[in-house]
Amino acid sequence: MNHEQLIKQYETIKARGKKLDMSRGKPSPEQLGTMSRLLTAVIRNDECFSETGTDCRNYGGLDGINEMKRLFGEILNVPMEQVIVGGNSSLNLMYDTVARAMLCGVREDCKPWCKYDQISFLCPVPGYDRHFAICELFGIRMINVPLLSDGPDMDLVEKLVAEDDTIKGIWCVPKYANPSGITYSDEVVRRFAQLKPAAKDFLVFWDNAYAVHELVDEEVPLADIFTLAEQYGNEDMVFYFASTSKITFPGSGVAIMAASERNLDQIRPILAKQTIGFDKINQMRHVKYFGSAAGIREHMKKHAAIMRPKFEIVDSIMHSELDGTGAAEWVNPKGGYFISLYVPDGCATAVYNEASKAGVALTKAGSTYPYGFDPRDRNLRIAPTYPSNDELRVATHVLCEAVKFAAAKKFFDLVN
Amino acid sequence: MNHEQLIKQYETIKARGKKLDMSRGKPSPEQLGTMSRLLTAVIRNDECFSETGTDCRNYGGLDGINEMKRLFGEILNVPMEQVIVGGNSSLNLMYDTVARAMLCGVREDCKPWCKYDQISFLCPVPGYDRHFAICELFGIRMINVPLLSDGPDMDLVEKLVAEDDTIKGIWCVPKYANPSGITYSDEVVRRFAQLKPAAKDFLVFWDNAYAVHELVDEEVPLADIFTLAEQYGNEDMVFYFASTSKITFPGSGVAIMAASERNLDQIRPILAKQTIGFDKINQMRHVKYFGSAAGIREHMKKHAAIMRPKFEIVDSIMHSELDGTGAAEWVNPKGGYFISLYVPDGCATAVYNEASKAGVALTKAGSTYPYGFDPRDRNLRIAPTYPSNDELRVATHVLCEAVKFAAAKKFFDLVN
Repeated sequence: MNHEQLIKQYETIKARGKKLDMSRGKPSPEQLGTMSRLLTAVIRNDECFSETGTDCRNYGGLDGINEMKRLFGEILNVPMEQVIVGGNSSLNLMYDTVARAMLCGVREDCKPWCKYDQISFLCPVPGYDRHFAICELFGIRMINVPLLSDGPDMDLVEKLVAEDDTIKGIWCVPKYANPSGITYSDEVVRRFAQLKPAAKDFLVFWDNAYAVHELVDEEVPLADIFTLAEQYGNEDMVFYFASTSKITFPGSGVAIMAASERNLDQIRPILAKQTIGFDKINQMRHVKYFGSAAGIREHMKKHAAIMRPKFEIVDSIMHSELDGTGAAEWVNPKGGYFISLYVPDGCATAVYNEASKAGVALTKAGSTYPYGFDPRDRNLRIAPTYPSNDELRVATHVLCEAVKFAAAKKFFDLVN
Repeated sequence: MNHEQLIKQYETIKARGKKLDMSRGKPSPEQLGTMSRLLTAVIRNDECFSETGTDCRNYGGLDGINEMKRLFGEILNVPMEQVIVGGNSSLNLMYDTVARAMLCGVREDCKPWCKYDQISFLCPVPGYDRHFAICELFGIRMINVPLLSDGPDMDLVEKLVAEDDTIKGIWCVPKYANPSGITYSDEVVRRFAQLKPAAKDFLVFWDNAYAVHELVDEEVPLADIFTLAEQYGNEDMVFYFASTSKITFPGSGVAIMAASERNLDQIRPILAKQTIGFDKINQMRHVKYFGSAAGIREHMKKHAAIMRPKFEIVDSIMHSELDGTGAAEWVNPKGGYFISLYVPDGCATAVYNEASKAGVALTKAGSTYPYGFDPRDRNLRIAPTYPSNDELRVATHVLCEAVKFAAAKKFFDLVN
């Protein structure tokens, strides 16, 4: 596409009054359209009964129906007995887990976190802004840890948690990390499992948001954190989260957490004060829609078929426009929802601003770091999934122009 | 029914292996069966769009769709702008409100409650056990206040909140109170609206769980707390809660809270850290199912037609078995889900135990008081809605026998 064509297409899209949005990891309307059968999966009264006879239309069943626990257990390789089915949001379950630790302590013999002058979390960076926002809200100090190509820098993680007993947690997206797309290696997962933290109430927040979100035919395996942690007597350290938000309908899906028996014994009585139970009809809808774990994997192929071309569009346009400029680095991921783009130091904010002026919304520069502060101002999270392919082409061209502009300006400023 | 018939019917029901359950305020299967059309209210993709164009199947819309806010606004007489639509549980919204106050404070200029050595709540008694459980979990001291026939003893409430700045809240079920069934008079609501608490972060938890839950044709009016509170500059003091749990499917309904503009300005940014949003498809299901506030009122008549005979069964059997014994007092309510039964002092636990031995589950004696402790051990919460009418007849006879037995034993012990 030459410059004139780009301008023309851009004007056409602007005339539609639609902002080009590459800011959030949202499924496209086309993806959502593939799931209409979920809306009709439970439409009769007699479809509302679980295998134990629970009437999903009534109170009861605090931690979810068996069928839903089993389904998540199978796709995550976690025993169904360790699963608590929650509401529609794994973020909310994580927020609740931090809030519960703040107010009640992690276990009976642990002081509530709010009773400490200072507590801290390790934050592999770049990472997920909504994880960081929970810490910021509760005044939890965040410590950056570099996320390498096989997971967080474990030398640093091991050292910090052993030395500093104010460190009470770490945020992990172990598969197709948000935003880098990397998956933790078996070795990294094993090192997590055998951590020796100074704080006995240190928690690993294992947010496996993209457990079955492959973009290509190859499935990237993730080692099983619970099995490994048990080998080292560390199973109480792991809090596991997942949801169907990017499997079915975001906001109308089903979220779960999984934890050790000892942790569940602490959580369930507190959860029973918080709610009488979550939406079991929606759980049953999901169970009937998928049928089995295999059904979920088949279903995810439909999403991949729609999403993969979008990632390819962004990747190929960036290659054709930015290769050889030295102004951009990225890796096209094998799964997940994001491309993590590195621009020259000090340029990310300028790229964000330039793209914004041209009508393309990116995730705010800095968002992938705690406190919204990217120390080198160089990382941008690109979310290719929501726009149509046409819009995406234009948006990516705009993005590339913005990158070149910002980089040129930086180097011009440097030599002048 | 004579004693022999009772025994026979009881044996028949026991043989079915079903425990007679009068313990929780649950709709009966028959009530649930009237709502099958809710399961099919949104089954097409094009039914998922709100009036503002929001795609309910995707992320976005933190505090709910307009249609749902309007519907609740209309049935509660609250401006829709003051409404936040939550998930499936108003209890969870109340829990979150307390947890938020504990961790973040009620407003920016207020200290988080967890930073105080001691905070307290007023608890009109008898009251709702799940309210009290939240306080107990967070170590909030509970102070009993008698619930009179027109609302809490306001002389006492006014005196206590003015004197004691550790008092940060009061639990209210202002219409068809759980369990007494009384509705706060206009005068009581007005006195709430003009409270002058010593603590500037004192909150009124206005849990209007039974706003449209009439059992008889006569609707008992409830004065509008927000309108009155505004007259006294006290609108920031009120947190309003409601849900469709006992309108549609418990656990799969929609809950809301309403608050002043100033409070909403504090809540929304915190809520945005907690979740990306609640289940908007389920909101749309409810909107399409009811159509309007009038639709909700029509719908509630179907419930009343099923529930009213159950209340009448309990009331009439208790009258025929207990009138003149001096062993029981109760008022058959005009709405809500409960009958509050008073037995002679020191007898409630005995009645609960005797009924339990005979296979009838009551709400545990003491549950209607903070810490599960009824100082006079005389109140029982009877929930007539869940059992079938046949089961209910037997269960009520058993209950009456238990009351007579416990009372006789007490008076026998007294004279011997």
